[in-house]
Formats: sequence, C-alpha cells, structure tokens
Amino acid sequence: MLAAGKYILSQQPFSVLLGAELTQFSMDVVEITLPLRQTLLQQFGFAHGGALSYLADNALTFAGGTALGEAILTSGYTINYIRPAKGETLVARAKVISAGSRQAVCGCEIFAVKDGIETLCAVAQGTIMTRSDPK
Amino acid sequence: MLAAGKYILSQQPFSVLLGAELTQFSMDVVEITLPLRQTLLQQFGFAHGGALSYLADNALTFAGGTALGEAILTSGYTINYIRPAKGETLVARAKVISAGSRQAVCGCEIFAVKDGIETLCAVAQGTIMTRSDPK
Amino acid sequence: MLAAGKYILSQQPFSVLLGAELTQFSMDVVEITLPLRQTLLQQFGFAHGGALSYLADNALTFAGGTALGEAILTSGYTINYIRPAKGETLVARAKVISAGSRQAVCGCEIFAVKDGIETLCAVAQGTIMTRSDPK
Amino acid sequence: MLAAGKYILSQQPFSVLLGAELTQFSMDVVEITLPLRQTLLQQFGFAHGGALSYLADNALTFAGGTALGEAILTSGYTINYIRPAKGETLVARAKVISAGSRQAVCGCEIFAVKDGIETLCAVAQGTIMTRSDPK
Repeated sequence: MLAAGKYILSQQPFSVLLGAELTQFSMDVVEITLPLRQTLLQQFGFAHGGALSYLADNALTFAGGTALGEAILTSGYTINYIRPAKGETLVARAKVISAGSRQAVCGCEIFAVKDGIETLCAVAQGTIMTRSDPK
Repeated sequence: MLAAGKYILSQQPFSVLLGAELTQFSMDVVEITLPLRQTLLQQFGFAHGGALSYLADNALTFAGGTALGEAILTSGYTINYIRPAKGETLVARAKVISAGSRQAVCGCEIFAVKDGIETLCAVAQGTIMTRSDPK
Repeated sequence: MLAAGKYILSQQPFSVLLGAELTQFSMDVVEITLPLRQTLLQQFGFAHGGALSYLADNALTFAGGTALGEAILTSGYTINYIRPAKGETLVARAKVISAGSRQAVCGCEIFAVKDGIETLCAVAQGTIMTRSDPK
Repeated sequence: MLAAGKYILSQQPFSVLLGAELTQFSMDVVEITLPLRQTLLQQFGFAHGGALSYLADNALTFAGGTALGEAILTSGYTINYIRPAKGETLVARAKVISAGSRQAVCGCEIFAVKDGIETLCAVAQGTIMTRSDPK
C-alpha cells in the first residue's frame, strides 16, 4: 500500500518540486515528510505557510483516499497555524476521523522536526469526497 | 506600495520557487498571479491543491498586511475548492473584509485563466493577526 | 418561493425556539432575521456566538437549497467573528458562490442592526451537498 | 473549577434557553451536555445544525478559557458535520490543542447519545484569543 501511495505522489509534479516523500500510508495514518530546504521558506526564515498548506492538503487527501479509494477530490479544509515552523524537516500526519460512502472527514497535524524533536506547528481538518457516487 | 509588496514577495524563497508575481497591491485588492507551469500540477493534470493553497495563504496574508502592517502572522484560513484548475495562469485576489487593531478577516478568490477567461476555482477566508499588540 | 421557504423554517422547532424569520429567499440572496431577544445573549450582553452560528448554518443551508433543491445536507462551514453583536436584530444574508450538481459553496454575512444601522459581525463560508446523487 | 464554569454557563441566557449543562471542566477536557429536546430539532427530526454549532462554539470557547483565562473572545471555528444527530442527548467535548499567551487552538467532538451509545456527529476546530494582551 505504501508503494502504491509513493507511486501516486511521484506522479504529482508539485510534490516532486517540493521534495515531499510519503513515509507512512495505512488505514491508521498517512505521513508525508518534507525536508525543509531553503526554497520552502518565507522572508523570516521559517517554513512558508504555503508549504505547510501543501502538506495539509495532500496528507488530508491521501487520508481520504484510504477510506474512499482513488477517485476522490478534496472539498476543502481549514488550517490553523500554531507557531512558526523551523527545523530540518516538516512532517504531516493525517488520519480519517469519520468516513461514509461518499465523504470522509480527516484531520492532520503538522510538525517541524529539529534535532529529532517534533514540535506541532499547524493543525488542519478537511473533507474529501468521492468524484462520483459508488454504483 | 506595489513595489514594496513585490520586494517582500521576492524575499520569500517559496514564492520564487513557485514563480508567483504580485500584480496588484492596494487597500482594495491584493492580486498574486502564478503562471501554471507543469511543475505546479497534480497527477491528473490540474493545478495541485497545494498550489491553490499557497495562493490563498499568501494573498490573504498580504491583504491582512494592508490593514495591519508588516508585523503580522496568519492565524489560519479555510479554503473550499470549487472545480479543478486548468489554464495558463492562476490568479488570486484577496481583500480585507474587516479589520481592527489586532486582527483582520480577509477573503480570497482564486481563478484559473485560460484563453483570457477567468474561472473561479476556489474561495478562501482567513484571519491575520498582528505579531504583538500595538503600543 | 419565499412562502415555501418560510414554511420550511416553520417546520424547524429550533428556528421557532429562537424566533428566526425568513425575510428574503431567492436565487440571489437568502436573508434570515432574528430579533435579538435577551434569551439569545451571552454573559456580557452580546449575542451568543451560538446564535450567530445558528444563523450562519441555516442561511448557508437555505442558500445551498436554492441551487440544489431540498434534499441537501450541510457538509460544514467556517465562521469568523468580527466584533461583538449588539442591537435589536441580527440579519444573516447568504448566497451561492458556486454550485455544481452535487455541491454548492456558499457565503454568508451576519449583521447586527441597531437604530437601523447594520454592522458586520461575522462572516461564514460553507459547503452544502445533495443528499444522494441526481439520477 | 467545574463550579466556576457552571456559574459562567448559567450567566449565558442562550445556554439556559437551550438547556446546556457543563459536565466536565478541566485542563484536559471541557464537556457540555445538551438534552436533545424537541425544540432543538430541524424539520427531519434530527438535531438542528445550529444546536451542534452552539455546542462547538461554546465548548471551544470554554476550552480556550482553561488556557487563557476569562477575558477571551472566539476568533472563529470550522465545523464539519459527519452524520445526522439523533438520540436523547448531545455531548460536546473540547480540548486545547495548543496555547500561547495570546491565542489557543482548540478541537471539539460532538456526539449524539442514544441508549448510552455515543456516535460522533460533528468535529470542530477553532481559535480563541485573549481580549487584550497580557501586561
């Protein structure tokens, strides 16, 4: 399942551009890891909010996929920033909170990792839908 | 004011990586334009949700800056995707809905532009705060 | 159409308990008016956030109904409070931002009215879905 | 602490109107219980979304209060509905996800309780701010 997920991520040019890696992909947790390269920063030296948002969007969508399959689209999500993100790596972990046949509500936590210590930097919550209804 | 905004954007390595350009920056509207290069797509050939999210995050923050100044941080935002984004360019337009001395609520619309025609692809709403209180 | 909407509202015991009235109901705008009785306040004498939230939830849902019909459910919404709400009346105005066959994204503004002057107190944005897919 | 919280709730006319009760109030969890009386329903016999929203708004705010004190205001929140709520009682449990000196991000789950069995019906996430900065 992880290999299948990695393949999908590798087909997303934007994920390749950013350097994201799928590091866990199961019914329990989806984890996307993003080395915090200089190109991902904003003007004050922290991770750009857009990079955290990318992680939220993608981890929530992959989590929705574990419940709903591949033919999905992300309806939307909310992200709350908690503190500026600094470190070597960003890690997003998402999971399904509840799923029906047409919609999954998912949650995501995003951590900055510095010297092996994870600090929570943002939380997100979103809704993933099937692209058309199950027959 | 536009020149000052362009300078800030040029200091964000992530915005430079994506190729974003500040095309309007006034009290009335903040506009960020993003040529939809192949590197910004997802696996189905549409703009990646993370690229739309980047635009929402940054346009909302710049809009908050028009009301609150430079020492701000984005508390969070919600994005709702409306339809897959395809075209030559993405354009995000944000404005202040209401601002006090410590917080601004801003709204943002994101369009895909194809053959000069704009199609609304996502809407976002968020809150920007001052970094510390005005003395 | 307004009469049909008023009938639906009258069938919601919660809307009757709060004293809500549907004052506009068209493809262009849904307006729900709520006299700001003492029972709707919080401990500081302002409208309770839950009363503003009720208005957002219901006005967004009615707006979704203008695009999608009656067999709908509200997927979720975001509300941002702008200032404490005080006055004789609360007025929520919602409209469809974009609608497809299965989903409508709607926006809502909530005003407090005092001496005939409207003050924006909250803005909301949400997603309404059809209950099952159109045949 | 629970007694102090119950007193605050009793000073909210809207909470009294709805019949809400504060059943837990600690740094770990805030729980508000709402008997699902007929007056809280919508036209299909389920709890009105506005009643679930009230619970989210109030439980998130009380949770923020455990971290920030009493002089707070709710910046905004997002609620995602998961399934229609039916039963004898609604229970909202909120907790602080992360708190600084000026802002707390809180999460909330809302359950319908029927025959003693809890079913998750909605999840919410919101931001609570201090009313003015700590001196």
